[in-house]
Amino acid sequence: MKLINFDHISANPILPEVKEAMIEAINNDYHNPSSQHRAGEQAAAAIEQARQSVAKLINAAASKEIVFTSGGTESVNHAIKGAALANSEKGKHIVTSNIEHNAVIRSLRRLKSAGFRVTSLAVDKTGRVDPHDISEAITDETILVSIMHSNNETGTIQPIEEISRITRQKKVIFHTDAVDSVGVVPIDVQKLGVDLLSMAANTFYGPSGVGGLYIRRGTRVFPLLDGGVQENNKRAGTENLIGIIAMGKAADIAERDLAARLAHLKRLKDKFIDELPDYIDEYIINTHAPYSLPNLVSISIKYIEGESVLLMLDDDGFAISTRSACATGSLRASHVLLSLGLSHADAQGTLVLSFGMDNTEADVTALLESLKKVVTTLREISPLYKI
Amino acid sequence: MKLINFDHISANPILPEVKEAMIEAINNDYHNPSSQHRAGEQAAAAIEQARQSVAKLINAAASKEIVFTSGGTESVNHAIKGAALANSEKGKHIVTSNIEHNAVIRSLRRLKSAGFRVTSLAVDKTGRVDPHDISEAITDETILVSIMHSNNETGTIQPIEEISRITRQKKVIFHTDAVDSVGVVPIDVQKLGVDLLSMAANTFYGPSGVGGLYIRRGTRVFPLLDGGVQENNKRAGTENLIGIIAMGKAADIAERDLAARLAHLKRLKDKFIDELPDYIDEYIINTHAPYSLPNLVSISIKYIEGESVLLMLDDDGFAISTRSACATGSLRASHVLLSLGLSHADAQGTLVLSFGMDNTEADVTALLESLKKVVTTLREISPLYKI
Repeated sequence: MKLINFDHISANPILPEVKEAMIEAINNDYHNPSSQHRAGEQAAAAIEQARQSVAKLINAAASKEIVFTSGGTESVNHAIKGAALANSEKGKHIVTSNIEHNAVIRSLRRLKSAGFRVTSLAVDKTGRVDPHDISEAITDETILVSIMHSNNETGTIQPIEEISRITRQKKVIFHTDAVDSVGVVPIDVQKLGVDLLSMAANTFYGPSGVGGLYIRRGTRVFPLLDGGVQENNKRAGTENLIGIIAMGKAADIAERDLAARLAHLKRLKDKFIDELPDYIDEYIINTHAPYSLPNLVSISIKYIEGESVLLMLDDDGFAISTRSACATGSLRASHVLLSLGLSHADAQGTLVLSFGMDNTEADVTALLESLKKVVTTLREISPLYKI
Repeated sequence: MKLINFDHISANPILPEVKEAMIEAINNDYHNPSSQHRAGEQAAAAIEQARQSVAKLINAAASKEIVFTSGGTESVNHAIKGAALANSEKGKHIVTSNIEHNAVIRSLRRLKSAGFRVTSLAVDKTGRVDPHDISEAITDETILVSIMHSNNETGTIQPIEEISRITRQKKVIFHTDAVDSVGVVPIDVQKLGVDLLSMAANTFYGPSGVGGLYIRRGTRVFPLLDGGVQENNKRAGTENLIGIIAMGKAADIAERDLAARLAHLKRLKDKFIDELPDYIDEYIINTHAPYSLPNLVSISIKYIEGESVLLMLDDDGFAISTRSACATGSLRASHVLLSLGLSHADAQGTLVLSFGMDNTEADVTALLESLKKVVTTLREISPLYKI
């Protein structure tokens, strides 16, 4: 039995056109892009083409502002550690929020042990940071603000443009983790006003293990990977050529199809939210329109464990998630949900459903029916649930 | 015109069996290995199989000792920065050699600006470090020794076993950059006695952009990429699944074919060195048997520029290299060759020829003929050369 994927936030399938581009690249026997003979030049040209595609997708001023990385996590580590270390003479204070991805949280924790000071801001009940709080938190010592574009567990989108007006005025570098946004919602780095932006190819149906970091011209950032002079001296290491070519192709398609994707995904999400009351009761929706991703819903179902729902839906042929895949194995309740004010019990009963272009409305109906069955079964054996 | 590749050190072609495995993986629509549903478990199983293949290739005691990375450069950065930062309470002194790859040199430079002290040892005329010098250089403050297994410009192999006897006795962590050795010569981490070993899949005909770091159980190393709990909590980020599967397949084949590879490559290298005097005169061989890679020759041809040879051989249909591809664009003479005692002029006249399984003896003869023609032409116009 093939699973119907409602866990796109963990893994999107690679698009057929992207698969074709990868297979062509595999069979093309590219050489090292840094080699000076002709074979090397062909590889370098393929990378430049991909770089231009990614630059166009986020409206970067120049392709040189895009650095290819091994994925969202490397991009985030590069942005945060690189900006902190390159600007530490100015100050050692960083501002962030309580609901960031572990890549941000743990990069900052690493910097703390190197003497940096971090202010982590609370969010409101809708999961949003108040730009005013950012303004208050910035001191003369502040060198970096890192606020995610959209949250990977709730889908909530932050007021990035408002925050960048503050960071620009105060001359502080602004990084946004847009790993779950680029290719899903329109992203324009000029409008957003950010200096650093992290992204991953899989979000827009490219392969996993390849990503990008936007570094606005003039932003001081040290490399995370030191060594050769690849990526305009910003990221050493022989390139993941096949992955980069795939990311470029996926970026082209994302730009072409963005409006259609938005419409399809929003239709599925709205259908799920609108019809959910017909199937189950006593739940909380943690995803707050209008500021949210079109492809993600987080619901906390009372009196049951999300993990049990996941396993029973798996038996029924549905792949879902209870939290960030990157936190798998952790027994602690999600820091994101607790930050929204959820109780530990409600946090443990949370499901993250993320829709993709391969899902249909019939899939959503099938999921709702299965969910009703599973929730009813689990509540029957729950000591917390009273009929 | 297709180039005949004598620049395998920059890029090996992907093996047909590895290509097949990659294409199968692309079409398999794997899910996120960290996801808890069935689709995630299949991906996790594929990674574990690849991990076992790589562990077997280098005779690691357990697959858990292998961490997949984005390539040799990340492995080296992870090993050096990770070991230094994790053990800085014991001391801040590191010992290395003058002929390391830029990934090592620049990682150490980064650490220097964070207060670490580095002793870099000279090599003898054959390019080898004297283990006695290592012993002398280690102090109570020394926490790490990093000496490459084989050099990427000369092919010279270092006395790693002798060095590890010293580091073990003195309880200092020992990292070796074996990026150009694993899959080319037999590598056994038990015999070598190293604690950390860097490798890259492309060296054994896998794709570029994927590599591994061997971390001996009990060795304290911080992650370079902080975030999720992937790779046994040692390297965060959603995995480059297709690349990892390819690396596992390439490792299987490398183990199976190692003896045949050694024999074929040595035959080509010996033929080139033995017959070279019949074609050109006045050159220096920088590669010193018996301690050298079977697939690489470095020669410094007097009175000419290596770069001009490279471009003219390119016109004749041969891809060669003058130095590390990672140093392309640098105008400075190779630090490796200067360390061997070469003059700047001789260093600039250096060619690095690296053989692969796709080369034949006829290819070598064709190269020798073209080389003779090119060298004669260039010397005719050289102001330094007197007939």
